[in-house]
Amino acid sequence: MSTVWKSRFAVRTLGIKSSAIRELLKVTQRPEVISFGGGLPAPDVFPVKRFEEACHKVLLEHGAQALQYGPTEGFEPLREMIAQNLARYKVLARPENVLITSGSQQALDLIGKLLINSGDRVLVEAPTYLGALQAFNVYGAQYVSVPVDDDGLRTDQLETSLRLGPKFMYILPNFQNPAGVTLSEARRHQLIFLADKYGVPIIEDDPYGQLRYEGEHLVPLVLLDRENMRRDNGFTLGNVIYLSTFSKTLAPGIRLAWIVAPEDVIGKLVQIKQAADLHTATFNQMVAYEVAKDGFLDQHVKLIRQVYRERRDVMLDALHTFFPPQVTWTHPKGGLFLWITMPEGTDCRLLFRAALAENVAFVPGDCFYADDGPNGCRHMRLNFSFSQPDQIREGIRRLSMAVKMQVRAAQTVWSEPVGTKV
Amino acid sequence: MSTVWKSRFAVRTLGIKSSAIRELLKVTQRPEVISFGGGLPAPDVFPVKRFEEACHKVLLEHGAQALQYGPTEGFEPLREMIAQNLARYKVLARPENVLITSGSQQALDLIGKLLINSGDRVLVEAPTYLGALQAFNVYGAQYVSVPVDDDGLRTDQLETSLRLGPKFMYILPNFQNPAGVTLSEARRHQLIFLADKYGVPIIEDDPYGQLRYEGEHLVPLVLLDRENMRRDNGFTLGNVIYLSTFSKTLAPGIRLAWIVAPEDVIGKLVQIKQAADLHTATFNQMVAYEVAKDGFLDQHVKLIRQVYRERRDVMLDALHTFFPPQVTWTHPKGGLFLWITMPEGTDCRLLFRAALAENVAFVPGDCFYADDGPNGCRHMRLNFSFSQPDQIREGIRRLSMAVKMQVRAAQTVWSEPVGTKV
Repeated sequence: MSTVWKSRFAVRTLGIKSSAIRELLKVTQRPEVISFGGGLPAPDVFPVKRFEEACHKVLLEHGAQALQYGPTEGFEPLREMIAQNLARYKVLARPENVLITSGSQQALDLIGKLLINSGDRVLVEAPTYLGALQAFNVYGAQYVSVPVDDDGLRTDQLETSLRLGPKFMYILPNFQNPAGVTLSEARRHQLIFLADKYGVPIIEDDPYGQLRYEGEHLVPLVLLDRENMRRDNGFTLGNVIYLSTFSKTLAPGIRLAWIVAPEDVIGKLVQIKQAADLHTATFNQMVAYEVAKDGFLDQHVKLIRQVYRERRDVMLDALHTFFPPQVTWTHPKGGLFLWITMPEGTDCRLLFRAALAENVAFVPGDCFYADDGPNGCRHMRLNFSFSQPDQIREGIRRLSMAVKMQVRAAQTVWSEPVGTKV
Repeated sequence: MSTVWKSRFAVRTLGIKSSAIRELLKVTQRPEVISFGGGLPAPDVFPVKRFEEACHKVLLEHGAQALQYGPTEGFEPLREMIAQNLARYKVLARPENVLITSGSQQALDLIGKLLINSGDRVLVEAPTYLGALQAFNVYGAQYVSVPVDDDGLRTDQLETSLRLGPKFMYILPNFQNPAGVTLSEARRHQLIFLADKYGVPIIEDDPYGQLRYEGEHLVPLVLLDRENMRRDNGFTLGNVIYLSTFSKTLAPGIRLAWIVAPEDVIGKLVQIKQAADLHTATFNQMVAYEVAKDGFLDQHVKLIRQVYRERRDVMLDALHTFFPPQVTWTHPKGGLFLWITMPEGTDCRLLFRAALAENVAFVPGDCFYADDGPNGCRHMRLNFSFSQPDQIREGIRRLSMAVKMQVRAAQTVWSEPVGTKV
């Protein structure tokens, strides 16, 4: 069914396609499917009771405020709490540097709207977060991709790309989505040095930073940048805009995230957000504040770390047990994802279909590359936060069957030319 | 303080300015100010108790779902409820025709993103809703304005503007914001006839339709349009996209609204919304469903009508008592706003400052015109839903003092040339 409207769609909408993740979320609602697909937190660690108490308190004591329109910038005590939490990493931000957004996806959309003219280049990691590509695509972004390895972005390959004059870099330094890798401290310094040298600012997306299961927290780019800068006062932020969220530490269903940026950037983002959704739900902000306060957030994050660390270890163990030796994977020190690399000649889309037939789901790796091409077709992203340990083990067992068939088929195809020559 | 970012802002952001309403909301937070400014619902009619029960029930029974990611289209039972509620006005829509948005402002933003190429013309009423202008401005909309009078849009002046080929018309048929006027039934038919004749589709924005204090509900444009159309099945929607919201019937602080449109339009809007904020908060949608269901919404709307009707009448009465005879105003049959017209030579911005000195606030009329110019500077928008009746009377008394001074000054200025000639 087509209507009068279709011929009137704006040019920017023509390239928009429904994402694989989106379709996946539908498939994985079938109860028999074990999903390593979406980046979903474990529902069993949602602090439901604490949310209930918070809703009760907020409505009882501040019902008229919680249900009313509020300021675009966000609920003041929440902005203050976020600024204070950053201070533990020595990032000195004031509430004026914090904008509350309706999830990190909105943060990415607002940043795209703020910075990208159609045709502008954006430097991204390869692979990178699909949602960021979707947000930036709407504004006509072109991409320059720089590969990641086990230590994150290959800063040794960065200069060639920076010379192309990208508008900004979009970087996930901690337990990157999708690869699960973390940018090493040495590379962080190198990245900031090159960002300065070429005058290319950075969007630092850090949804998982708190969810570290081993090793020490590494210095955020936003802090390294500040140390590099001449400052007119202690609060100046400069070349790095920092993003984070409650989606992975409290709950994604309340859609609460934030942008930390210099005041002139926040001022413009506030105007853009006002036109986009007026403000993020007052009620949600006040409830999240009540939930998080008095040290609860820190306590709760400890619980999440414990649960997710176990699930990661179960997945790593199951991979070791069931997967064929030709397949390799990352060893994430935190976050929600593992990144699998299959042998040459395999195709993650074929594997995806074969896996679904075994009632197990993942996201094919090619979704996470800005440029079309053969990149990623040997990869898959596995989420280990959502499923219970016994499901993880069973899911990896099922997946291994599809993987083995794929690997075998690929070997046959690749050895065939040799075979026929003989 | 300016940063590296400022030089990188995209072209579309250069024209974005902070709105008067936004600044107003700040001023009016001073407790001594009586505000007729923002379009705020009365906090005393928020169904706080019902919200509390709903939060309790949703978290107790569906905590894991409510706090988790959800589908971009929205919570299925809520979409179904909205489709059913439309059926009472004979608008046959299926849940597939409904997209839940994060407030009506997001609906306007998504529609702007979907339809407007930079430079496209949008036909709007003069005056029209400021928030729509802000949303469409971001996408480079140009405007064609058609005036409204006591019977709404002047359809007799529409054809000249339709010949300019606007991409779509943006119309508020019921208790229009800001003028408070309602499009007469005869003009509705005329509007649909001309929309068909010139092939220009309509966005029908209806946030206040339920809040009628006298007279009978008039047929929505979306229904008239359907009756005009050849249909391939009972559910086809065509040239009219319909918007409404819970902000005025339940509470704005939960940020819930919806778009009703043909399925191909909803499909594209879902993709755009996915890139913009992934989805509207699951928790809010489930809570609003619990609050609204079992006939509560209808019952509650009856209470709101009663409260707002009284406030409107108090304001009309106070205007009659205190305002000078040179000033006129609309008599809205519903909604939240009155529109005041001052005599020639007055300036609403000067009046705004004078009123603030008397601790009373309103929105200057010029904010509501798409085109710069002298339009609106003789007008002010007064909200009657937010303040208590005794505050309304006192506020109008205070405002009348500023108004009388302005009227006197204007008369002096306007008679001066005559006077100096004598």
